[in-house]
Amino acid sequence: MDAATLASTYWSPGIRDLKAYVPGEQPRGEGWTKLNTNESPYPPSPRVLERIAAAVDARLRLYPDPDGNELRQTVATTFGLTPAHVFLGNGSDEVLAHAFLGLLRHEGRPILFPDVSYSFYPVYCGLYGIGYERVALDQRFQVRLSDYARPNGGIVLPNPNAPTGIALPLADVRALLVQNRHSVVVLDEAYVDFGAQSAASLVAEFPHLLVVQTLSKSRALAGLRAAFALGDPGLIEGLERVKNSFNSYPMDRLALAGAQAALEDRAYFERITGQVMQSREWLRAQLVQLGFDCLPSSANFLLASHATRRAADLMAALRECRILVRHFTQERIANHLRISIGTQAECERLVDVLQALLSPAQPVASAIQGSTEP
Amino acid sequence: MDAATLASTYWSPGIRDLKAYVPGEQPRGEGWTKLNTNESPYPPSPRVLERIAAAVDARLRLYPDPDGNELRQTVATTFGLTPAHVFLGNGSDEVLAHAFLGLLRHEGRPILFPDVSYSFYPVYCGLYGIGYERVALDQRFQVRLSDYARPNGGIVLPNPNAPTGIALPLADVRALLVQNRHSVVVLDEAYVDFGAQSAASLVAEFPHLLVVQTLSKSRALAGLRAAFALGDPGLIEGLERVKNSFNSYPMDRLALAGAQAALEDRAYFERITGQVMQSREWLRAQLVQLGFDCLPSSANFLLASHATRRAADLMAALRECRILVRHFTQERIANHLRISIGTQAECERLVDVLQALLSPAQPVASAIQGSTEP
Repeated sequence: MDAATLASTYWSPGIRDLKAYVPGEQPRGEGWTKLNTNESPYPPSPRVLERIAAAVDARLRLYPDPDGNELRQTVATTFGLTPAHVFLGNGSDEVLAHAFLGLLRHEGRPILFPDVSYSFYPVYCGLYGIGYERVALDQRFQVRLSDYARPNGGIVLPNPNAPTGIALPLADVRALLVQNRHSVVVLDEAYVDFGAQSAASLVAEFPHLLVVQTLSKSRALAGLRAAFALGDPGLIEGLERVKNSFNSYPMDRLALAGAQAALEDRAYFERITGQVMQSREWLRAQLVQLGFDCLPSSANFLLASHATRRAADLMAALRECRILVRHFTQERIANHLRISIGTQAECERLVDVLQALLSPAQPVASAIQGSTEP
Repeated sequence: MDAATLASTYWSPGIRDLKAYVPGEQPRGEGWTKLNTNESPYPPSPRVLERIAAAVDARLRLYPDPDGNELRQTVATTFGLTPAHVFLGNGSDEVLAHAFLGLLRHEGRPILFPDVSYSFYPVYCGLYGIGYERVALDQRFQVRLSDYARPNGGIVLPNPNAPTGIALPLADVRALLVQNRHSVVVLDEAYVDFGAQSAASLVAEFPHLLVVQTLSKSRALAGLRAAFALGDPGLIEGLERVKNSFNSYPMDRLALAGAQAALEDRAYFERITGQVMQSREWLRAQLVQLGFDCLPSSANFLLASHATRRAADLMAALRECRILVRHFTQERIANHLRISIGTQAECERLVDVLQALLSPAQPVASAIQGSTEP
C-alpha cells in the first residue's frame, strides 16, 4: 500500500468516487486575453472600490455581521422584497451547495436538470448523495417544459442556461412553477443580467421558487465572492439552517461592503452589462461570418462550433496566441467553444486571430504574431 | 397548514431537526467592551492593511486563484512543510465542516470529542449525519487520554480546548496519535498561539493528523475569514475533493492577500499575542481575588465561575454596563462565564465594573455609571 492509498483509507467513504468540478484556468503572468471564465471584462464600479478601501481598517479584527443584515436589506430593496426573502453566500457555488443539501435531497426522488448545463450540479449530487436525472435539451439546446412534468425531488435550471447561453422566457418559468408545485425549482440566474428575464418578480407568488444570483459576472466582482438567493421566507429559513450549521460568517467584511456598493450603483451596472451585450452581438455576427454555428445568447458568453475545425484544436491554437477560451469534453458540446465576451478590443483581437487561424493561405506563425506582447 | 409549515415541506428531511450553532452577539453601535467572541483586541498588522489596500483594484473582476497557491506556499514555509500539506478555507468553521464531511463520516463508527468543547462539533454531525459520542473531561476539565482508547470514526480535540482554555501538552498529543492510528485525529488549534504547543511539528510523522488553525484570533483577522489545515498530503487531497465539490473559490482575492501578509509579519503577531497573554494572567489574578474560580488558560479567554453569583445574572449585569461576555447554557459550565481577553484597559474596566457589581455596599447604579460613554 503506497502512501497515497494509506492516507485515503482515512477518507469518509464516497470521497474516493467524487468527481470534482474543474474551474477554468487562471493564468499567471500578464498578456492574456482571458475569455474562458465568464468574468466581466470591465472593472468593478469605482464606488465599490472606494467602499471596500474605506473598510480596510482596524475593524477587520472583528467578525462580520453573521447575518449580513445591511447587505440583505440592500438586496431586498433592489428586488422589491424583504430581508427575510434573501439568503447570502460566499459566491453562488456556495449558495447552490447549500440549496442542494437543504432543499433538494429527497430519498427516492431524483432531481432534474438539463443534460447540457452547469457541470457543478452533478458534482453537488455526488457530494451529498442526491439522485439526479439529466433531461435532454432539444435539438437547438432548448428546454422543453413537458419533459419536466414528472415526479422529482427538485428542478434546477440555469437561466440563461450555461454553457449554451439560451434563455427561458419568464412565461415559461411561470408555467414550469405552476406545473411543478411539489418540489423546489431553483433558477440559477448567474447570467441573467445580460439579456434574460429574472424570476425574482415571481418569488412572492411561488413558495417553491429559489432564484440564485451572483455578483461575479454582471457586477464584475468574481474576485470578491458574493452571491445571494431570493425565495419565500420558508425556503430561506431552510437555507439559513444549513448555513448556520456550516459556517456562521461566510461573507467577510470587505465582501459585504463591496457587494452592497455594487448593488447600489445601478447606472454603472447597466452601462457595463450593456457594453457586453453590444460586443456579444457584434462578435456573434463575426463568428458566423467565420463559419461558426453560434447559439443565440442571453449571457456574457457564446457557444460556437466551427463547420470544419475541431474545437479542441482551435482552443489550443488560440492558447498559443495567448487567448483563453473554454472547451468542455461533454457529449453534444464536445465540438463547441465557450467564449466569454471581452471588451470590444478583446473581441476584435479574437476575430483577427481566428481569421488568421482559419485562413488556409495564412501561415500560423503570422497569426500568432503579437501573442507575446505585454 | 400555515405558510412556514408549507415552506418547510420543501426542505430536505433532516433540516427540520438541525440545531444550528449560535455565534456570539455582534452589537451594533459604538461604546461596547466586547469580550464575547474571542476576537483580537488589537488591530491587524499595518502590513496586512497595506497589502489588502493594494489589492483593491480592477483585478477584483477576476476570480481568485482557486488553489490559493501563494498563500499555501506561505503557510507551508511558516510551518516547515510543503504546499501539499496545506488546505485553505473561508474561516476555520468551513475547514472543519469539510473535515467532518470528508474525513470523519464513517457509518457505524461514531467520532469522539469532549463533553465540554466547541459547540459547533455536534452541529456538523447533525448536518452530515455523523454519529458522535461526547467524552467527559475530568473534574478539572482535563482530557484523559485513556478515555479515547476505543473504536471510533475520528477524534476531534480543540487544543487548547474551548471554552475551557486548557491545553493538552504536545507529548500527550503524540501519545494520542500513537494510541489511535485507525482514524483521523483533528486538532482544532484556533487558540494555540496564546501559549499552547502546536501539533504542526507532528504532521510529517503521522498520516492521520489534521491540524486546523485560523487567522481570526492571533492574527486579528476575524473579519477577513481565513484559515488553514495542515496534514499529510493524502488527508489534504481528501479535503480538496470536498472543497472542489463545494466551491472552487472559497477565499477571495483580498483574504488571500491579507492572510499572506499576516503570516509574514511574525514580529507583530508575537507582540500582540504576548500582550494578550500578559493581560490574561493579570485578569485571572484579579478575578480570583474577586471570588471567581478561574481555569488556567492557554487561550485568549478565561472560563470563570463566581462563588456566590449566578453566571447568567452577572452576564446580564455586565451587559447593562455595555460589557459583553459569553455564557453557555451547557451542563457543567452553565454557571461559568467565558471572558475574552481585551486590551489591558478593557480588562481593567471589566475588573472595575465587576468590583462594583460584586460589592454588596455598592448600588448598581454607580457601577453602571459611564456605561453610555462613547
